[in-house]
Amino acid sequence: MPPDSPTPPQIPGEATSSRLLLAEPLVLQSGVTLPGVTVAYQTYGTLNAERSNCVLVCHALTGDQYVAGVHPVTGKAGWWSDLVGPGKIIDTDRFFVVCSNVLGGCMGSTGPKDLNHATGKPWGVHFPVITIPDMVQAQAKLLDHLGVGQLFCVIGGSMGAMQVLEWTHRYPERVFAAVPIAGSYRHSAQNIAFHEVGRQAIMADPDWCQGAYLDAGKIPKRGLAVARMAAHITYLSETALHRKFGRRLQDREALTYGFDADFQVESYLRHQGYTFTDRFDANSYLYITRAMDYFDLAEENNGVLAEAFTGTRVRFCLISFSSDWLFPTIESRTIVRALNAVAANVSFVEVISDKGHDAFLLDEPEFHQTLQGFIDGAAGFRGLTPRRPS
Amino acid sequence: MPPDSPTPPQIPGEATSSRLLLAEPLVLQSGVTLPGVTVAYQTYGTLNAERSNCVLVCHALTGDQYVAGVHPVTGKAGWWSDLVGPGKIIDTDRFFVVCSNVLGGCMGSTGPKDLNHATGKPWGVHFPVITIPDMVQAQAKLLDHLGVGQLFCVIGGSMGAMQVLEWTHRYPERVFAAVPIAGSYRHSAQNIAFHEVGRQAIMADPDWCQGAYLDAGKIPKRGLAVARMAAHITYLSETALHRKFGRRLQDREALTYGFDADFQVESYLRHQGYTFTDRFDANSYLYITRAMDYFDLAEENNGVLAEAFTGTRVRFCLISFSSDWLFPTIESRTIVRALNAVAANVSFVEVISDKGHDAFLLDEPEFHQTLQGFIDGAAGFRGLTPRRPS
Repeated sequence: MPPDSPTPPQIPGEATSSRLLLAEPLVLQSGVTLPGVTVAYQTYGTLNAERSNCVLVCHALTGDQYVAGVHPVTGKAGWWSDLVGPGKIIDTDRFFVVCSNVLGGCMGSTGPKDLNHATGKPWGVHFPVITIPDMVQAQAKLLDHLGVGQLFCVIGGSMGAMQVLEWTHRYPERVFAAVPIAGSYRHSAQNIAFHEVGRQAIMADPDWCQGAYLDAGKIPKRGLAVARMAAHITYLSETALHRKFGRRLQDREALTYGFDADFQVESYLRHQGYTFTDRFDANSYLYITRAMDYFDLAEENNGVLAEAFTGTRVRFCLISFSSDWLFPTIESRTIVRALNAVAANVSFVEVISDKGHDAFLLDEPEFHQTLQGFIDGAAGFRGLTPRRPS
Repeated sequence: MPPDSPTPPQIPGEATSSRLLLAEPLVLQSGVTLPGVTVAYQTYGTLNAERSNCVLVCHALTGDQYVAGVHPVTGKAGWWSDLVGPGKIIDTDRFFVVCSNVLGGCMGSTGPKDLNHATGKPWGVHFPVITIPDMVQAQAKLLDHLGVGQLFCVIGGSMGAMQVLEWTHRYPERVFAAVPIAGSYRHSAQNIAFHEVGRQAIMADPDWCQGAYLDAGKIPKRGLAVARMAAHITYLSETALHRKFGRRLQDREALTYGFDADFQVESYLRHQGYTFTDRFDANSYLYITRAMDYFDLAEENNGVLAEAFTGTRVRFCLISFSSDWLFPTIESRTIVRALNAVAANVSFVEVISDKGHDAFLLDEPEFHQTLQGFIDGAAGFRGLTPRRPS
């Protein structure tokens, strides 16, 4: 913790929304120096006197800092409300929970839709390409500001898991426990391919205006919706899609022999695509998908993943889902093998689920039990106050 | 065979390209009557005196009638040149091979890019929605014209397999042997979803002009390219993508921190997308994907797939590929179970391959051996001249 850290905030119970303007420019992995970086974040619960009860939650590609409570744009519950809250598994009566919008995002942290003060115009595609390590660097500076030295736990699913792994690699002394869920140490060729389809869909939309749509007063909604639709299929399993929709028709008795959404699955996808455009910035989508594509923790370590974790004292819990074909179990197993190779403290559970990648966001009892057990156990080792019996 | 059938063509060896204008309008499954239907087709080899050696090849979504020889647009070899030709498994010295462009296609058979004589303009989205049964009906009329009563064999992969199954259901007396490869009896929710993404990508392109792009002198290339890219991923396995590309960079030593195609897989996808637009019509893509989505041979038979095959005397050979996640083996197994339930003559092979759905188009020795064995065996039972020893 830097010497100039402020007094840790003592906010009982309620969530707080804040924005931190970093005092120093960020030096990005690309070598570019980015000045004037803002990190938007939510906190839930209270940092204890020992500053030892902080849980950093890392969000996924299209997630944001509204992990619990009510989302200010959609009016819906935060994306992990099932897990984060008073008396819940990530118990805000017990832990000081922090979640920040990633660098490059569009919910308050600096990203391509913000003003480039050098030009007086939105950054657009002149925003520098950011990476998972850059996101983590911004989070570390936020935690410096909040007076948190070592995290009790860093946790996240999907792209959140990439950040978790990066945390354990880059700041091993600042992490007591780490839970990468449904993630990988590097983006696969297939995943890069799906992201590229999404980017091409956005860039093909004339309203994208070569990235300068905000200047032009336009929004590339159609391209962004198509990108979201393609991605959304990858978040579900074939089984889940079949169970949810099968070949059932949407509000009609028979096929219409036309291009309307005859099938429920079509109607659902269109809805997913177009509602997404109300809350997400198209250029942010380009930048964040790129950050995921670029992530390769093995490559960063001479091609040897185990070297990323040499000497680690972090307690790891990896969780994957059997029907997740975007980040299949084999990816987590590869990480477990690397951790075993350096004699790390690691547990691993493949949850049998037919809900696909999205299972990490859903009510999945075996997942929740696994997480509960690991967090309670780690909290005991860390000497945190025991969970209040429910 | 209708009494007015012409003399069967006797074209030794060489392929012939022809177009047949159907004498009667087609009554489509939708109830619409479509006049002036043209069927464009290729034949290879010679129909024997008994008219018993005809093999009908059914093409897939983006395939066409150029199964062998040189494709007139791309200049490349026909899509099944490995299998169809003199001395090959579908031996044109032995069989009379017919392949027609599907109804709704864009390589000469009537489709949305053709003139609607009632308006003097291209059909565009006023073309009636066509179905797999409609495609098969058009093929049957072509075979009437060619003087072929019973096919020795009907064979095809992917959407071709749907046509094969429809043939055995609708015209069981006209099929001696049937080979549906990497197919299904109905399109799954996930497959409908992927098709819907492709259609939405096309329709999102302003150059689509609500379907009237030909009138407007435009081509929705960007939308069609995105549709093709999304679909192309589904044709390959994750393993195949990894083996072909992994995370290798394209003509560069390091990441560029930009949105160029840094990765080979991105460059490959873009190439696949944009070259496709040179040979395929966007509205045809809409219509043919819709035909696949609508296909449901169980639904056509009171929800009981086996009823589609009651009393069948067709000899079936089903082939699937272990890494095909678009039409996974379970789909073929379901068909085999239905055929078993009606005591049909059926053999089934799941070929172990890591090439994904596209394996049916590739050099896959176990697949080729299986096909060779089945075709030679069936030809023997049919009393055709034995294969010339190679």
